[in-house]
Amino acid sequence: MKENRHYSLKELTHGLDVIVRGDSNCVITGVSSIHEAKAGHLTFLMNALYRKYLPSTQASAVILSEAEAANCPCTAVITCSPYSIYARMAAYFDQKKRPLPGIHPTASIGEHCEIGQDVSIGAHSVIGDHVSIGAGTVIGPACTLGDYVVIGEASCLDAHVTLYHLVVVGQRAHFSSGVVVGSDGFGFANDQGAWHKVPQLGTVVIGDDVAIGANTTIDRGAIGDTKIGDGVKLDNLIQVGHNVSIGAHTVIAGCTGISGSTKIGKHCMIGGATCFAGHLTICDHTIVTGMSSVTKSITEPGMYSSGIVGAVPSHEFRKQNARFYRLGKLMDRVKTLEKKMTQTIASPLPEGESHK
Amino acid sequence: MKENRHYSLKELTHGLDVIVRGDSNCVITGVSSIHEAKAGHLTFLMNALYRKYLPSTQASAVILSEAEAANCPCTAVITCSPYSIYARMAAYFDQKKRPLPGIHPTASIGEHCEIGQDVSIGAHSVIGDHVSIGAGTVIGPACTLGDYVVIGEASCLDAHVTLYHLVVVGQRAHFSSGVVVGSDGFGFANDQGAWHKVPQLGTVVIGDDVAIGANTTIDRGAIGDTKIGDGVKLDNLIQVGHNVSIGAHTVIAGCTGISGSTKIGKHCMIGGATCFAGHLTICDHTIVTGMSSVTKSITEPGMYSSGIVGAVPSHEFRKQNARFYRLGKLMDRVKTLEKKMTQTIASPLPEGESHK
Amino acid sequence: MKENRHYSLKELTHGLDVIVRGDSNCVITGVSSIHEAKAGHLTFLMNALYRKYLPSTQASAVILSEAEAANCPCTAVITCSPYSIYARMAAYFDQKKRPLPGIHPTASIGEHCEIGQDVSIGAHSVIGDHVSIGAGTVIGPACTLGDYVVIGEASCLDAHVTLYHLVVVGQRAHFSSGVVVGSDGFGFANDQGAWHKVPQLGTVVIGDDVAIGANTTIDRGAIGDTKIGDGVKLDNLIQVGHNVSIGAHTVIAGCTGISGSTKIGKHCMIGGATCFAGHLTICDHTIVTGMSSVTKSITEPGMYSSGIVGAVPSHEFRKQNARFYRLGKLMDRVKTLEKKMTQTIASPLPEGESHK
Repeated sequence: MKENRHYSLKELTHGLDVIVRGDSNCVITGVSSIHEAKAGHLTFLMNALYRKYLPSTQASAVILSEAEAANCPCTAVITCSPYSIYARMAAYFDQKKRPLPGIHPTASIGEHCEIGQDVSIGAHSVIGDHVSIGAGTVIGPACTLGDYVVIGEASCLDAHVTLYHLVVVGQRAHFSSGVVVGSDGFGFANDQGAWHKVPQLGTVVIGDDVAIGANTTIDRGAIGDTKIGDGVKLDNLIQVGHNVSIGAHTVIAGCTGISGSTKIGKHCMIGGATCFAGHLTICDHTIVTGMSSVTKSITEPGMYSSGIVGAVPSHEFRKQNARFYRLGKLMDRVKTLEKKMTQTIASPLPEGESHK
Repeated sequence: MKENRHYSLKELTHGLDVIVRGDSNCVITGVSSIHEAKAGHLTFLMNALYRKYLPSTQASAVILSEAEAANCPCTAVITCSPYSIYARMAAYFDQKKRPLPGIHPTASIGEHCEIGQDVSIGAHSVIGDHVSIGAGTVIGPACTLGDYVVIGEASCLDAHVTLYHLVVVGQRAHFSSGVVVGSDGFGFANDQGAWHKVPQLGTVVIGDDVAIGANTTIDRGAIGDTKIGDGVKLDNLIQVGHNVSIGAHTVIAGCTGISGSTKIGKHCMIGGATCFAGHLTICDHTIVTGMSSVTKSITEPGMYSSGIVGAVPSHEFRKQNARFYRLGKLMDRVKTLEKKMTQTIASPLPEGESHK
Repeated sequence: MKENRHYSLKELTHGLDVIVRGDSNCVITGVSSIHEAKAGHLTFLMNALYRKYLPSTQASAVILSEAEAANCPCTAVITCSPYSIYARMAAYFDQKKRPLPGIHPTASIGEHCEIGQDVSIGAHSVIGDHVSIGAGTVIGPACTLGDYVVIGEASCLDAHVTLYHLVVVGQRAHFSSGVVVGSDGFGFANDQGAWHKVPQLGTVVIGDDVAIGANTTIDRGAIGDTKIGDGVKLDNLIQVGHNVSIGAHTVIAGCTGISGSTKIGKHCMIGGATCFAGHLTICDHTIVTGMSSVTKSITEPGMYSSGIVGAVPSHEFRKQNARFYRLGKLMDRVKTLEKKMTQTIASPLPEGESHK
C-alpha cells in the first residue's frame, strides 16, 4: 500500500552538517524507532530512556551525538542535534501527497478574491468574499474561510478547517483538521441576572511558520486582536481565549486552556493540560510542566509546576485527601505542642507542684 | 480592509440609561481597551486591574461608574453597569455580515422541512427530513442537521455545526463552528470483559438565547433528554455528558467537562477546565472557580474551589509533592510527640527514676 | 414527532437469558429511568443510588438482579447483568435511522476505490484515492477520507468525521461527529531557538468494535503507528498523542489526554479529564479515577488516583492552599519539637539547673 523508497545514506545526509562513521553507501529503506529497527532502517538516539537499546539495535544507521557514538553497533551519523537531523532525513520518507494545484469544481469561491499561483482548493470548501490566498497554499476539502481572510504563501490547511472573517495567517502555516480560528470570544455582560453578548470586534493575527493541531480553537479578540507569533506550535484540543497573545517560537502541548487577555512570552514551553487564568503575563523562556494551573503572572524565566502529581493506589489517595483536609488541625496541634514545650523547658513549674 | 464607521456619542447612547459628563457630540470612530485607546475611541472601565490606566487614557470617552468618574480625563459615560452599556454601544462597530436570506444552491435539503421566512442556509449544508427552521435563522456553510431537528427564530449556526436527529434548539441561539449536539452518550455495558453499546434514546433540548462555543460537544440523553436552559452560555471545548441538565442563565468557561446525569442549577458560574463527576446536583447560584474537580453535590449557594492552585518553581514543587506524600508520617510524629508530652507533664516519672 | 412503538415483554426478552417474574405479556411502549418511569415503561436498576426509587416506580417492568427483585412492585426481569440486558431490550426503541445504501450525488469519490455492498456515503463527503470501504458501512455527510484509508464492514462514521491518508479502521466502528484520526503528531525539533517539523511517517490502526466520541483526536505515529485495540471505547474530546497504544476493551472517559508513546493496557478503565505523561506503560486491568495525572508507569493492576479532589468553599480552599505551602515549615517545627522532647526526656538537665 505504501510506496517503497530507498536512498543511500550519502544522499540522505547531502548538505547536512554531520559526520558519517561507517558505511555511507548503505541503503536506507525507511525509518524506525531504535528498539524496533530492522536492517535497512535509519533511527536516532536522543531520549536517554532509549539508550539501552543502542548496542543491540538492528538499524543500518543511527543518528546520535559524538558521546553516544562509541556504543553504536552500525553506521553512525554524528551530530550535536540528532533530532533536527533526523527530521530532515526522515522527510525523504514522507508519503503525504501534496494535492495538485487548482480549484475543485465543487468549491464555492466568493467575489473579489485573490488566489495566488499554484493554490489548491479542495472539494466542498467555501471561500468568502475578498479573501486573499498566497501562492502555493493548499486549502483542504471542506474548509470554510470567512470574508477578508488573508493567508500567506506555502501554507496548508487540512480538511475541515474554519477561519472566520478577517483572520490573518502568515506563510508556511500548517493547520490540522477541525481547527477553528476567529470564533467569538466568551464575553457576556450580566444585566439583572441575564447575560448579554459583548460584541467581539477584533480578529486573530497569526504569524509565519505556525502549526495548529486538530480541533484546537482560537477566539477572535473582543477589542484588538488575538495574536499568535511566528514559529508558534500548538498541539490538539487547545483553547486560546480572546485577546490572548502567544510569543514567537513558543510550543504548547495538547488540552491546554488559556483564558482571555493572558500574554505568553517568546520561546516558552507549556506542558499538556495546563490551565492559565486570564489577564496574566508570562515572561519569555518560561517552561510550565504538564497539568499545571497558572494563576499568577511569571516574571522570571525558569521551570514552573503546580499541584500534586503522580497517581497512587486509590485507597492511599483517599487517606492523603483526608490528611490534606486535616492540615489545619495538625498545625493547631503542633502549635499547642510548641507552647507546652516552651512551658515545660523554660517556665517554672506551676505553683504548688513539684517534679517529685 | 475593515469598514470605517463613525457616530456621535449622542447617537451611541441614544435610549440608554446613562449620564454623559462632557462632550456628547464628540465623534467616536471605534472602541479600544483603556490603555491602548486613541483619540476617537470609546472605552470602558470595569476591572479594577485597569483603573491605573484611567488618568492617562487617550480615549475620547470612557464608560464607567459614578465612583470612577472623578478621575476621567475625557468625556465620561456614567452608568452602574459599564460592561452592559459597553456591549450595547460596541455593537454599532460590529463588522460581522449577516448572510443574505436564501438557500445556497449546493445545500442539500431533505423532505417535509419547514423553512421559515428569511432563513439563510449556507453552501454545502445538509438538512435532513422533517426539519423545522424558524424565521430569520442563519445556518452557516457546511452545517449538518439530522432528521426532525427543530431550531427557533433568529438563531445563528456558524460554519461546520452538527445537530443530530431530533435535537431541539430555541430562539436566538448562537453556536460557533465545530459544535456537535446530540452525539451518542458514553454508555456501554460490560458483558464478560467486552463493552456493548447501550442505545442512547433521548435527545438534547436547548432553550432560548443559548450560546455555545467552538468545538463544544453535548451528548444526547440515554433515557430522557439532555437539557440546556434559557440564556445558558457555554465556552469552547466543553464536554456535556448524557442526561446532564444546565439551568437557565448559567455560564461555563472553556475546557470544562460535565459527566453524565449531573444537574447544574440556574445562575451558576463555572470556571474553566472544571470537572464534574456524574449524578451530582449543584444548586442555583453556585460559583465554582477554574480547574476545580467537583465530586460531591453542592446544596448551598456560594463560591467553591478545589485542589492546589498556583504554579511555583519546579524544584519547590517537587519538594512540596514529597512533603505531601509524607503527611501521614508527619501526623504520626505529631501523635508520638503529643503522647510523650502528656507523659512528661502529667504522668508520674517511671518507677525508680527521679528528675534529679 | 417520534414514532410510537410497542412490544410485549415476551418479544423484548426473546432469546435473552432472563427470568420474568410477573406479566410477560405486558405491553412496553418505551424506556425510562426508574424515578421517571410511567405505566408502559421498561426500566432497570443497577446503580445503588437509585435503589430508593424501586418500591414506588410507576414502570411496568424493571430489569434487576435477583437480590433486588423482592422489592420490585411490578413485573421483574431478573438477570445477573441488568445493564447489558437493558442495552439489548432498549435497542428496540432506537429511532436512529440507517441511511439508505448508495453514494449521494454530491459526494466526491477518488480513483481506484473499493466500495463494498450496501455502503452509504453521505452528501458532500470527500473520499480520496485507493480507499477501501467494507460492506454495509455508512459514511455520514461531510466526512473526509484521505488516500488509502481502509474501513471494515458494518462501520458507521457520523457527519463531519476526518480520517487522514492511510488510516485503517476495523469492523463495526462507530465514530461520532468531529472525530479526527491521523492528523500529524506534535513533533518538532529545536534548532537554535526555532522549531522544525519532524515528519510524522506512521499512521493510525484501529481494531474492530471501536467507538470514538465527538471531537476526539487521534494523531498518526511519528515512526510506526498509533494503535487502538479491538473493543476500545473513547468518549468525547479526548486527545491521543502519536504512537500511543490502547489495549483491547479499554474504556476512556471524556477530556482525557494521552501524551505520545504511552501504552495503555487491555481492559483498563480511565476516568474523565485524566492526563497521561508520555512514554509510560500502564498494565492491563488498571483503573484510573477521573482528573488524575499519571506521571509514572503502572505495573500492578488496581485502582489509582491522584491529586486532591472535592470542591470546598473558596475561603476554606484558600486557607488549605496556604497551609499546603507552609508544609515545609511545619515539618521543620515538628523536627525542632522532637529534638527538644528528646533532650527534655532523656538528657540530664543543663549544668547547674534542677527540676526544683
